[in-house]
Amino acid sequence: MSLSFRHLTSTRQLSRADTDAILKHAYEMEGVVKNPKQDERLKGKVLAALFYEPSTRTRLSFETAMLRLGGSVITADGFQFSSLYKGETIEDTMMMVGQYADIIAMRHPEQGSADRAITVCPVPFINAGDGPGQHPTQALLDLLTIQKERGKIDGLHIAMVGDLRFGRTVHSLTYLLGLFNNLRFTLVSPKELKMPEKVTSFMKEKGMQFEETTDFAAALDCDVAYMTRIQQERFTDRSEYERLKLVYVLRADQLKGKNVTILHPLPRVGEIETDVDALPNAAYFRQAKNGLLMRMAVIDLMVGG
Amino acid sequence: MSLSFRHLTSTRQLSRADTDAILKHAYEMEGVVKNPKQDERLKGKVLAALFYEPSTRTRLSFETAMLRLGGSVITADGFQFSSLYKGETIEDTMMMVGQYADIIAMRHPEQGSADRAITVCPVPFINAGDGPGQHPTQALLDLLTIQKERGKIDGLHIAMVGDLRFGRTVHSLTYLLGLFNNLRFTLVSPKELKMPEKVTSFMKEKGMQFEETTDFAAALDCDVAYMTRIQQERFTDRSEYERLKLVYVLRADQLKGKNVTILHPLPRVGEIETDVDALPNAAYFRQAKNGLLMRMAVIDLMVGG
Amino acid sequence: MSLSFRHLTSTRQLSRADTDAILKHAYEMEGVVKNPKQDERLKGKVLAALFYEPSTRTRLSFETAMLRLGGSVITADGFQFSSLYKGETIEDTMMMVGQYADIIAMRHPEQGSADRAITVCPVPFINAGDGPGQHPTQALLDLLTIQKERGKIDGLHIAMVGDLRFGRTVHSLTYLLGLFNNLRFTLVSPKELKMPEKVTSFMKEKGMQFEETTDFAAALDCDVAYMTRIQQERFTDRSEYERLKLVYVLRADQLKGKNVTILHPLPRVGEIETDVDALPNAAYFRQAKNGLLMRMAVIDLMVGG
Repeated sequence: MSLSFRHLTSTRQLSRADTDAILKHAYEMEGVVKNPKQDERLKGKVLAALFYEPSTRTRLSFETAMLRLGGSVITADGFQFSSLYKGETIEDTMMMVGQYADIIAMRHPEQGSADRAITVCPVPFINAGDGPGQHPTQALLDLLTIQKERGKIDGLHIAMVGDLRFGRTVHSLTYLLGLFNNLRFTLVSPKELKMPEKVTSFMKEKGMQFEETTDFAAALDCDVAYMTRIQQERFTDRSEYERLKLVYVLRADQLKGKNVTILHPLPRVGEIETDVDALPNAAYFRQAKNGLLMRMAVIDLMVGG
Repeated sequence: MSLSFRHLTSTRQLSRADTDAILKHAYEMEGVVKNPKQDERLKGKVLAALFYEPSTRTRLSFETAMLRLGGSVITADGFQFSSLYKGETIEDTMMMVGQYADIIAMRHPEQGSADRAITVCPVPFINAGDGPGQHPTQALLDLLTIQKERGKIDGLHIAMVGDLRFGRTVHSLTYLLGLFNNLRFTLVSPKELKMPEKVTSFMKEKGMQFEETTDFAAALDCDVAYMTRIQQERFTDRSEYERLKLVYVLRADQLKGKNVTILHPLPRVGEIETDVDALPNAAYFRQAKNGLLMRMAVIDLMVGG
Repeated sequence: MSLSFRHLTSTRQLSRADTDAILKHAYEMEGVVKNPKQDERLKGKVLAALFYEPSTRTRLSFETAMLRLGGSVITADGFQFSSLYKGETIEDTMMMVGQYADIIAMRHPEQGSADRAITVCPVPFINAGDGPGQHPTQALLDLLTIQKERGKIDGLHIAMVGDLRFGRTVHSLTYLLGLFNNLRFTLVSPKELKMPEKVTSFMKEKGMQFEETTDFAAALDCDVAYMTRIQQERFTDRSEYERLKLVYVLRADQLKGKNVTILHPLPRVGEIETDVDALPNAAYFRQAKNGLLMRMAVIDLMVGG
């Protein structure tokens, strides 16, 4: 299996064939996790996790993925305290770290930093989030979770809920779902946090059906409800935030008799009550596990072979 | 060998059988350290070291233990700078990291955090210190050191010296020593820093003999003297601190002709002069090595097999 | 092959035989990097990277070196946030970490800290930079780069450019080059940042020819030009800094028809324009790769076998 790209910076670069290959490979990774002593396919390879902006959960997920493939990891987290951040360009850092490592995963607060990195990066590069820009492995693990939970992707009815305006994950996932067929979307958000025109244009262009609503209940009649955080820092009016954050909160009683699969990129900060966790609908912790499998798949396809 | 528990949060949960099994296993770990290429028993397993509160020495000890067993490590240290600390509950963090790792060691500033963690943690969990609460592997390594230095535990005369009021390590160790027989204790501390009633009640209940004194010299006629730091932050009156910190200082000349074994959880900040280091009585650096062996034993028993 | 020393704190301790052995071993490390699965010579060994002062690039280089030899790494970076830094002496930290690890690499802001460390360190120790003091593996990798780029060291004409007064790397390298024969030096710096008398005395004593100049162009007619940063913090007068930092800047057009090899310890902050990077003269990223090979060689010779 081979991919059409050397560096992974955005879901927009993925073809359907790439996506199918990655999904298939992610399923195979379960066998590697279960028999770690038999399969050290990336033994002797080194991943550099460069997190200019701390994101502990994403970093741990990438690192575990590499370790479970038999590889090793070098890490720089919270670069603000480090010499790397003082004056050196991203390009020079890539040239330097690319002498040490076989693959680089980078998180950076500035949109476009990943595109700058790959102009020179001498080894395969994964964008692990560039500010408000892209975070392709998140969208891929969301996709994997949908497929594992529902058995398919084509033809599903998917709700996206919460902050659709600033939520990077829902944008990336929507672009990725553009590769699939006969999907319907219900976009549930406060008026202030509607899906941006850039994304809805894309959906129209691709012939993806969608309706927009402020009614949270509509999400629960879909096959999948993708929940997101409503972040306080998006509001200038704090009372408006306090009002809205209470509207989009899922409780177990709302799921009685519902078949909807609940996804959430985590961390949650109140959007899903803990009484939901025990229900079969709750897929968000399995989603975290899928993140591990997906990152194993992506790293292995990009650096192995 | 199997333990009576899945998660290790406190020395109070340990039975005598558990403790004996762990001590025995710790002795066996010396062979693993000496022949690392022959024994990679935890190859393919991942330890997550989650240090919400930095404690570099404890973290390095846990990490080395896992590495010397052939396993791998993921680490988050100094969570105050990280996304993990922002709003997410300990329970959700356990659910998430438990998808990646095979065992979790957690340090956290709040007492009771370990008990919250194990309500949901999907993999074996070790409390690596929860504020003023418990730190069971520290007590176990102290116990191992006593046994290795004195050849036995039953029947020993043990002095505890310094800050017995706030010193977490002396409390945990006392509870653990409650599993053994015919011990005598000499509790040496300033009046302001006496062993709390909670612990002395436990000792009375278990029939553990003890005397309390302010006289430092009394400690040096015991089999073991467990020294602790007197921490400045415990005092509102700085001059009182300055006076007391000079009272409980061990010098080499005081050990002339003495058979007492000196323990200290480290770091020391003046309680033991460096001229003591070269004496056979000084066991505190061997104690650090025993910490490695003990953590290897605990991790292996909890996750291996 | 065996070295004449147990701990590496300064280039001044290296004999010509040591240096030749290390260079030879560094060449052999390329084979290890290329066939990592066949050669895990340090499997089961642990490197402790103790960076009291953050220096991410040096830390990642040491860590990768150990990992590519098949060993493992424990790390403490940015000790200011950690318990290790609170009150404990360097000596006690060495005694403690020396119970865990097989070799220690330490970076510390205070000159002389490495010399204190080795008075007690129970395992081999590498000075990874002690403030304005020494950083011997940097000088060794510079030497390796010169040899690889020019095919020899004896008889070369070497320019050192920029801040020769405070630049630790040029001092260490000069001492190391004192072991070789028939070298000529051109020392190019602003008057305020001339090579210190301590170093020029050494050169005279060793019979190393040198001339001092402020003329940047002189550097480009040498075999090797070792460029360094001019750091703002060295100047009390900011306008003087602004004037000088523009004087010593290398552009591609200046290298037309020149055979000079350009070295730089990185990071650069403007001393070398990026249009130089594509020229064959530009050796500074290969130099970073040589840093990995050199640290592999040093670690392997010090801890392996």
